[in-house]
Amino acid sequence: MAPAPFISKTDAQKGHVAGGCGAWSVPLQVQPTGTGCPHGSTAPSCPQVGDITILVNNAAVVHGKSLMDSDDDALLKSQHVNTLGQFWTTKAFLPRMLELQNGHIVCLNSVLALSAIPGAIDYCTSKASAFAFMESLTLGLLDCPGVSATTVLPFHTSTEMFQGMRVRFPNLFPPLKPETVARRTVDAVQQNQALLLLPWTMNILIILKSILPQAALEEIHRFSGTYTCMNTFKGRT
Amino acid sequence: MAPAPFISKTDAQKGHVAGGCGAWSVPLQVQPTGTGCPHGSTAPSCPQVGDITILVNNAAVVHGKSLMDSDDDALLKSQHVNTLGQFWTTKAFLPRMLELQNGHIVCLNSVLALSAIPGAIDYCTSKASAFAFMESLTLGLLDCPGVSATTVLPFHTSTEMFQGMRVRFPNLFPPLKPETVARRTVDAVQQNQALLLLPWTMNILIILKSILPQAALEEIHRFSGTYTCMNTFKGRT
Repeated sequence: MAPAPFISKTDAQKGHVAGGCGAWSVPLQVQPTGTGCPHGSTAPSCPQVGDITILVNNAAVVHGKSLMDSDDDALLKSQHVNTLGQFWTTKAFLPRMLELQNGHIVCLNSVLALSAIPGAIDYCTSKASAFAFMESLTLGLLDCPGVSATTVLPFHTSTEMFQGMRVRFPNLFPPLKPETVARRTVDAVQQNQALLLLPWTMNILIILKSILPQAALEEIHRFSGTYTCMNTFKGRT
Repeated sequence: MAPAPFISKTDAQKGHVAGGCGAWSVPLQVQPTGTGCPHGSTAPSCPQVGDITILVNNAAVVHGKSLMDSDDDALLKSQHVNTLGQFWTTKAFLPRMLELQNGHIVCLNSVLALSAIPGAIDYCTSKASAFAFMESLTLGLLDCPGVSATTVLPFHTSTEMFQGMRVRFPNLFPPLKPETVARRTVDAVQQNQALLLLPWTMNILIILKSILPQAALEEIHRFSGTYTCMNTFKGRT
């Protein structure tokens, strides 16, 4: 199988994605913080692996606070890593994919992109932006043969990232295993699936959100605990 | 009627909103570009009008290109003005509203926040982020008596901003008049309405988007012309 280089924030994240399809990975570490993200019109040189035809944008950070409790720099950092980072990596790798007529841009996003909660305003705003980015990109690639895009929106996944977050009905909505997200992501890429919500029940949430009045949605947020789930958030310690 | 200070990018925008309710406005010009937007934990001093209890975030820019045609600085500018600008203005004015238990945060957004198109990736991503910002904020204000939020998502409005954009069926979907958007915004604020899509037919678009498969949505985009509507875009000249 072809090598699969990953631009990722941690080794653990690389392992999860690479492990699912038996591919081997060549880590290309990019420091995803601050305004100095690498970007330009030329693709990075990767002599170890040749042309890069799959880009998995997986790096993300979370500050996990409401607006008034948020630190300004932390708000900025989440936008730069979770949103702008994808602009620059995609701008760097997409041109060569278009030349080759062979490529796939993958975005590991979150269901919070489509349903924001109060206690993670930095994360929800940046993930919503990344979702629109992929939506715009996916449509733009319709006339580009051989190059596609896949956006994955998982529910809470049992990594350290959202450590401490308390879901009210964990038996009804258990956290996803990283291995499951990785395997389903690889499946979606292989099937050229543009959008993947995990688990499938999240599709119901999105439909409900589009038809219910705001007052009903607010009651659902209160009842399901999403309104307060971040009160116990600790994150990576 | 109480004075209504507006933080706005142009005098024309102020006039549209202020004119709808007969309020008089005291302009508080803020330079909304670059990273140097004013933000801090203390509310700006406005001795001319006393406490500010309505904040209308209306400033926005559009670069209007696809990802690969976009200038990096223009991509950044749209994020700073359309998204981060709202973080800083809201952080500045909300604390006093919470103290007074009297206030309203208004966001003039766009229906493109919920349905991105290829030719305006900077605008769609930043507006999606601003939408999630207001969604998170609105939920966070549920337990804050007297303080509310309203998000307005209009379809194409006949201002200079999207000059040159060509809608395929202009008789079916005529551009909105700025005065209509202003009047409906004032109504929504007075009725404490959290979300307003204009015209109402946009609600159908959002419902369709939540239930139709990606392939069908792509065909709708092609047929309706949203896929190519920005090809003739000129913007403010």
